[in-house]
Amino acid sequence: QKAEIVMYDRLVSDAVLALVPEGAERIFAGKASRRHYMPQETINDVLVTQARSGRRVVRLKGGDPFIFGRGSEEALHLAEHGIPFEIVPGITASMGCAAYAGIPLTHRGLSKGVHFVTGHMAGDGELDLDWDRLADPDMTLVVYMGLMRIDRICRNLIEAGLPTDTPAAAIQNG
Amino acid sequence: QKAEIVMYDRLVSDAVLALVPEGAERIFAGKASRRHYMPQETINDVLVTQARSGRRVVRLKGGDPFIFGRGSEEALHLAEHGIPFEIVPGITASMGCAAYAGIPLTHRGLSKGVHFVTGHMAGDGELDLDWDRLADPDMTLVVYMGLMRIDRICRNLIEAGLPTDTPAAAIQNG
Repeated sequence: QKAEIVMYDRLVSDAVLALVPEGAERIFAGKASRRHYMPQETINDVLVTQARSGRRVVRLKGGDPFIFGRGSEEALHLAEHGIPFEIVPGITASMGCAAYAGIPLTHRGLSKGVHFVTGHMAGDGELDLDWDRLADPDMTLVVYMGLMRIDRICRNLIEAGLPTDTPAAAIQNG
Repeated sequence: QKAEIVMYDRLVSDAVLALVPEGAERIFAGKASRRHYMPQETINDVLVTQARSGRRVVRLKGGDPFIFGRGSEEALHLAEHGIPFEIVPGITASMGCAAYAGIPLTHRGLSKGVHFVTGHMAGDGELDLDWDRLADPDMTLVVYMGLMRIDRICRNLIEAGLPTDTPAAAIQNG
């Protein structure tokens, strides 16, 4: 409500954007899973430039900035340039989706913890994950951005020993 | 703001309780890590009884109800008794602490995911966790309620192969 500049991502909802004050400048950073309208380096540079102009900058992201949000890269860039900042946590996608879908991420006697990983591919097109560690029937596994590779993810988990009757859910547009 | 009964845990802050309407009845469930003022079964029963009285009940918990919050047990109990309900997600302790401590839970090139487990003991006084899976230098490990057993946790991780120079933080009263 005191923001003078708001740089926001594609996944920020209209309801949240409606809270931005009338007079504030809006900059769309527009990150999407397969197309980045603004490269991360540009986002970093714009944050520094705008902060140095003396204006109050809000960097508005969907979910939680420290869970697969690249918030740490932006924070590191600000720190390296001597820009003071504060991080505000948010509801990460998996927890919001779990709550509204009625799927607990932990449950006594069924799941004693949860792993969060991402289904993004490494440079060689393979998923760079340690499936032997992740194929754990005693834990919940959450794969962010996993829909494009859901067949590969399932196969890798089964090959690593996860029972084929393990309950699973695929959530799209959560 | 429409609540007629609010049943809240010990970790709910005064600032949040101040949002409860004046006329609403407050019931303190008072869960603490080593003493439960109200047994879980009693909490479950009170929720059902109050809901059946026709009043609008809010069950207010700290953090996120589906991450080590036993929210799923309460939801299951309500479902079994035919009480309609909605789950609202929250900021889980690890993400709130991470944000304000400036410690990202994931970071490209350093940590490609995060494990959440709890440091609560099993019945035999041992931590019932699969240390070989958790001692992963490519992932962040978060142990909720781990302070009482921090020595055991460190030793188990090192014995499972985690390098002794792995950066670590212990957060108390986050």
